[in-house]
Amino acid sequence: MTDPADDLIPSVFARDCASRGVMADVTGKWGGLALAALLDGAYRFNALRRRVDGVSEKMLAQTLQALERDGLVRREVQATIPPRVEYSLTPLGERVAGKLKELIDLLESEIGQMRAAQEDYDRVVR
Amino acid sequence: MTDPADDLIPSVFARDCASRGVMADVTGKWGGLALAALLDGAYRFNALRRRVDGVSEKMLAQTLQALERDGLVRREVQATIPPRVEYSLTPLGERVAGKLKELIDLLESEIGQMRAAQEDYDRVVR
Repeated sequence: MTDPADDLIPSVFARDCASRGVMADVTGKWGGLALAALLDGAYRFNALRRRVDGVSEKMLAQTLQALERDGLVRREVQATIPPRVEYSLTPLGERVAGKLKELIDLLESEIGQMRAAQEDYDRVVR
Repeated sequence: MTDPADDLIPSVFARDCASRGVMADVTGKWGGLALAALLDGAYRFNALRRRVDGVSEKMLAQTLQALERDGLVRREVQATIPPRVEYSLTPLGERVAGKLKELIDLLESEIGQMRAAQEDYDRVVR
């Protein structure tokens, strides 16, 4: 772990590695939900905001901008009147969102076990 | 998506669902890195802190406490002198960390493509 060659290998464990910043975008409070929602297909901004229940307009805009900058989300303005702005996943975004979805499916399917663990913990500790 | 039966199905997209809280613990700024690090095996607190480069003592303690409460991390105090405290993954923690690791591996392997996207974006937008 202290081998100098490690500097050449991207590692989220290294504080200055770009991959850690990308991981923060992908797994941040709203980034993961936005990516997973876009697996459904393209969304307009307000529809996506309804899907990601609880996100503010400002936070969703910032989240989508970061994901677009990382090359995971595509923002497309259609020349209709009024213009229609749609967000969708890039091919890489689909792969990343697919991995996130597997994680989400696992957490959702095991939420009962985790709720039980939380109750046990709170009984002992509090 | 507005079917009342949805209330019965855990969904990270619903703001009050417990699974969203667990997702925040697992994918939060330090939670994901701590879980992925523990795939290496058990760690003592200070060794884990060195592995998760940049985390403060306080944040790592809070992170581990949340993951322990969720039933993903086990904290074990060994009756040595001085006592030795070790953190390891529970069986469910291993499954969750395994999914996270797949996501991390993907991000690390595609970081070149994402860096290039960031540079293109910054050239056009800024």
